[in-house]
Amino acid sequence: MAVNGYGTIGKRVADAVAKQPDLELVGVAKTRPSFDARRAVDLGYPLYLAADAVRSDFDAAGLQVAGTVKEMVARADVVVDATPDKVGAENRALYDAANVRAVFQGGEKASVADVSFNALGNYAAARGKRRVRVVSCNTTGISRAVAVLLPRWGVERWDVTLVRRAADPAESKKGPINGIVPSLHIPSHHGPDVRTIFPDLEISTVAVVVPTTLMHVHVNHVRLRSAPASAAELVAALRSTPRFRVFAPWEQANGTPQVMEFARGRGLGLDDVPENVVWEDGVSLEGRDAYFFQAIHQESVTVPENVDAIRAMFDLAPDGPASIARTDRALGLSRA
Amino acid sequence: MAVNGYGTIGKRVADAVAKQPDLELVGVAKTRPSFDARRAVDLGYPLYLAADAVRSDFDAAGLQVAGTVKEMVARADVVVDATPDKVGAENRALYDAANVRAVFQGGEKASVADVSFNALGNYAAARGKRRVRVVSCNTTGISRAVAVLLPRWGVERWDVTLVRRAADPAESKKGPINGIVPSLHIPSHHGPDVRTIFPDLEISTVAVVVPTTLMHVHVNHVRLRSAPASAAELVAALRSTPRFRVFAPWEQANGTPQVMEFARGRGLGLDDVPENVVWEDGVSLEGRDAYFFQAIHQESVTVPENVDAIRAMFDLAPDGPASIARTDRALGLSRA
Amino acid sequence: MAVNGYGTIGKRVADAVAKQPDLELVGVAKTRPSFDARRAVDLGYPLYLAADAVRSDFDAAGLQVAGTVKEMVARADVVVDATPDKVGAENRALYDAANVRAVFQGGEKASVADVSFNALGNYAAARGKRRVRVVSCNTTGISRAVAVLLPRWGVERWDVTLVRRAADPAESKKGPINGIVPSLHIPSHHGPDVRTIFPDLEISTVAVVVPTTLMHVHVNHVRLRSAPASAAELVAALRSTPRFRVFAPWEQANGTPQVMEFARGRGLGLDDVPENVVWEDGVSLEGRDAYFFQAIHQESVTVPENVDAIRAMFDLAPDGPASIARTDRALGLSRA
Amino acid sequence: MAVNGYGTIGKRVADAVAKQPDLELVGVAKTRPSFDARRAVDLGYPLYLAADAVRSDFDAAGLQVAGTVKEMVARADVVVDATPDKVGAENRALYDAANVRAVFQGGEKASVADVSFNALGNYAAARGKRRVRVVSCNTTGISRAVAVLLPRWGVERWDVTLVRRAADPAESKKGPINGIVPSLHIPSHHGPDVRTIFPDLEISTVAVVVPTTLMHVHVNHVRLRSAPASAAELVAALRSTPRFRVFAPWEQANGTPQVMEFARGRGLGLDDVPENVVWEDGVSLEGRDAYFFQAIHQESVTVPENVDAIRAMFDLAPDGPASIARTDRALGLSRA
Repeated sequence: MAVNGYGTIGKRVADAVAKQPDLELVGVAKTRPSFDARRAVDLGYPLYLAADAVRSDFDAAGLQVAGTVKEMVARADVVVDATPDKVGAENRALYDAANVRAVFQGGEKASVADVSFNALGNYAAARGKRRVRVVSCNTTGISRAVAVLLPRWGVERWDVTLVRRAADPAESKKGPINGIVPSLHIPSHHGPDVRTIFPDLEISTVAVVVPTTLMHVHVNHVRLRSAPASAAELVAALRSTPRFRVFAPWEQANGTPQVMEFARGRGLGLDDVPENVVWEDGVSLEGRDAYFFQAIHQESVTVPENVDAIRAMFDLAPDGPASIARTDRALGLSRA
Repeated sequence: MAVNGYGTIGKRVADAVAKQPDLELVGVAKTRPSFDARRAVDLGYPLYLAADAVRSDFDAAGLQVAGTVKEMVARADVVVDATPDKVGAENRALYDAANVRAVFQGGEKASVADVSFNALGNYAAARGKRRVRVVSCNTTGISRAVAVLLPRWGVERWDVTLVRRAADPAESKKGPINGIVPSLHIPSHHGPDVRTIFPDLEISTVAVVVPTTLMHVHVNHVRLRSAPASAAELVAALRSTPRFRVFAPWEQANGTPQVMEFARGRGLGLDDVPENVVWEDGVSLEGRDAYFFQAIHQESVTVPENVDAIRAMFDLAPDGPASIARTDRALGLSRA
Repeated sequence: MAVNGYGTIGKRVADAVAKQPDLELVGVAKTRPSFDARRAVDLGYPLYLAADAVRSDFDAAGLQVAGTVKEMVARADVVVDATPDKVGAENRALYDAANVRAVFQGGEKASVADVSFNALGNYAAARGKRRVRVVSCNTTGISRAVAVLLPRWGVERWDVTLVRRAADPAESKKGPINGIVPSLHIPSHHGPDVRTIFPDLEISTVAVVVPTTLMHVHVNHVRLRSAPASAAELVAALRSTPRFRVFAPWEQANGTPQVMEFARGRGLGLDDVPENVVWEDGVSLEGRDAYFFQAIHQESVTVPENVDAIRAMFDLAPDGPASIARTDRALGLSRA
Repeated sequence: MAVNGYGTIGKRVADAVAKQPDLELVGVAKTRPSFDARRAVDLGYPLYLAADAVRSDFDAAGLQVAGTVKEMVARADVVVDATPDKVGAENRALYDAANVRAVFQGGEKASVADVSFNALGNYAAARGKRRVRVVSCNTTGISRAVAVLLPRWGVERWDVTLVRRAADPAESKKGPINGIVPSLHIPSHHGPDVRTIFPDLEISTVAVVVPTTLMHVHVNHVRLRSAPASAAELVAALRSTPRFRVFAPWEQANGTPQVMEFARGRGLGLDDVPENVVWEDGVSLEGRDAYFFQAIHQESVTVPENVDAIRAMFDLAPDGPASIARTDRALGLSRA
């Protein structure tokens, strides 16, 4: 497989694929030389020129180029498109012309692909598909939580307030520096997007943007159809599900700064936290009303989903849980 | 009346009282000299030494002192206690000994006073009382909104996510600088506190702290008992209520940074926004489910409530609306 | 006079001119309706349509329009151009065609005008000129300080590190949110720009951008030609100069958050701090080497300079000090 | 060797020592259970109870404890004290009583140890010493730069403006959130501290604190005794020195956010950047006046220095360069 667009998501998908025993990385396409381009070369990833790239820029930087993105696509059977929002849709013709399959990201409209995808939510729906869209980080986070609660207790209604990070850590031109910006359109696009995975879910989402770069935080209020025995039962369900990391009080991970500190020490690479982060003490139950926070690491949470999407498309695993287990083992994800 | 504690709230209450035609400011008590103390003197407020104040510090700064806080209390018939959280309770004995009435702030427990107070919510309950507690900024903001919706459509259930500013603008030692800190205890203390004003309300509140100094933002989801005709009807109800400022889309007040810019230009003093701020485009209705944002200026939103509390205690106005109108006229609050 | 461009600087210049006894405000031109446009109307400033403005947008907002910018210019004898950087140069033809004089801001190249201007630095040079450029906020701040030290002790060499605020308070799209961005080009443009006021000054400036919206802070190291008797003598010289505000330790204005809190309480309007802010305790002297910090409020520091520039162009005052005194009295600037 | 205090510095020193072929980690002492304590256990570091630690807290968290800090000290021949500022001095009696050597951090006074230390600056001075103090992150950064320039061109005078990060990434209680706080005492303590390494250096340092968690940035102005041929010669000298990382323009590391992104991708562990970071385009020369920025990663820059300090104390390497090379090879530091 190949990765078109080697930014925040693309570099992580390349790393993740390179670690999988049953997948092979053909190369990555990048627009400009940078320390990230150099890293790709250092890691042995063949580096291709993205659409607007200028070969002489790479030559001047001493970065060896393996060819153009068109050549890269021709050598792959599937491309993960990790170009900026809306560019993926423009690239579709390129992949179609080469007769290769494609995985798109959540910044594209759902119509870009045959199906929208979340590994815990609807793995089977992507089987054999030629074009799959991995939903965005926030939609992935919500969908995973739905996949835990819905089959166990049923969901009457799901409300989420998304407290969104305004920029990624290395984006130094985006603000705000001081202030909160509400996303005035209600519901935010996330609710409808979750319904590309769970079409019948009653869900409403509202978003505000805040001046942090670290993680999104979701405040969930779920009215269940039947009541769990206790908040502890809910915690146990989350803790036993892959792609959830539940922090116990003694761990002292009081907020996203500490969660990222945990991530730095864990060393999965690039400070990744591909799991939904839940605080045990922040799970509460009143009758059928469950409340819980989850923190979502915007940079890495969809990465394992991209890997699973490929497996589903080529039917490389017996089912979702098997693919998830294989992906997570290769990534070094453990559940503590 | 007198103000004990001349910080963020105290200096604003002093200004507000000084502007009221029917109230008189006896003085303010402050702990240390500072530009704020100087401002009090420049404005002609008699300056008294708070409990821990050292007279020679004020002498060295050239700030004339009118006496001790005990002397100030003796000259007043009511004291607004605006000392830091929990200190108010310690001061109660001082006020009792002098046989003066007292208004406490929301950082104190409800038990500090005979009644908790919000002018739109329960003005009558404070009439003739000797000790009144003005609820905190967030509780004030929520109570006002309840006072609009509850009598018109009934409230089945009220859910609020409070996205809280982490520090006031001049507090330079508090963080976080980058990150979101959830208040893990659910419900947060705000919900129960609203019930000191509306005892029967079904309300649940969840809070997160974010790195901004400007305003809190509340994300409200209210299940009403009967449905308004439209979101516009809801907007109209808020707009016609005192202490609400609804921004139209053409005003381009997209977030709290712009709301504060509006405040700077309006010039009520100290960038105050004593009203609940609502964005017209951020009010949404699905059947009986209403969603809306409101921004709450933590520094000033309780200030007019302190004035009204005094009027209620001494029965200086025929009713709540009359007191509110008198307070707001004196403060220069208009509803546009 | 008229103001073209009613943003951060333009609205302040309009307010300042409106307060001057010897100047008259013909109107302001604005591109889009907003709460700021509404404020202009509320203050009685005739509102004109800037170049790209659409009249129907203003009609829809209920904002009365007095005409087009061309009409406004025709009614004025001088225009203060407060449009965004580089747009001023494009507007020059408009002013020339109407045969009106123009004041430009520091975001334009020096060549836009006949002379670059700072009231303490080179008032006389602007006398009778048709086009004057008021230098930028940082250059204004440095020039004022040069105007104090140079005539008293001579300057062998002046080094400034500019710690720059990344965005204005109401600009919510600009970052960085977390990080420091050095302006790698050394010297930064500020040093050469100061030489448009003081051509022979040996000055070098280096800049870094930091995630704050409040004020710039300059770290000055000046090697003087002769040594002041003490740091106190230096402090006294700054304190006795108009457009300097020196904070004494007892005032507890420890950083820019507290300086802005002082500004909010002083109430000049819009939180303005048109003076250079100096901390008495932050002035240090080792022999002929003087070190001091100054904080510069990017939004307001050039505003009185625009007023003085007009006076110089029309020779309305006997000299710089007289114009400065008249401007400052009208603005309510006192030196404490 | 053992590490007392397992926070930001302590955990890094433990990791660094564990990687050295010629050093052995006896254990680490920690006050409270946390995800960091768990990480120590997972990495196989024996975990001891620091002075105030409560054994039952660790038991409840399922963290195996190897003993008390006193027992740990007894098993070591040298302790790196990485406890909070000023606590190290209190611990000295503990180390003396056990007759073990000790390395202290820069938060302690110089008098805590026999010598203050920087590997490039004064390696030989620490040879055979029983108590060594590794200077603070900022002092380390400056000392390294002095060690490059002083022997090559001589230094007439060195001026540094330190733009300091206000808090570490995981410290969520410290501010400011929005604002700049100058360290009014001039010179800041850094200049005198550099003279513990280079006693005869003419140096003056001034500091401001800014709302970021990522790195400090130093603005250096150095008047050299003789002029380098060009800025390029200066760049070459820095680039060829260990513990410097010079970014070329094509790498697009425009500020500290991008430098940290580079760090995340490099994967030394914990996002470490133990080198002084210099931007090639940010090095400038006018005659004998050199200007350059350097970014200092407060969390990791002193870590290799702690390792070298131990080697010097026990005379485990022939000289400084040999120790540095050994340390850096083990840490995976390369110079690109």
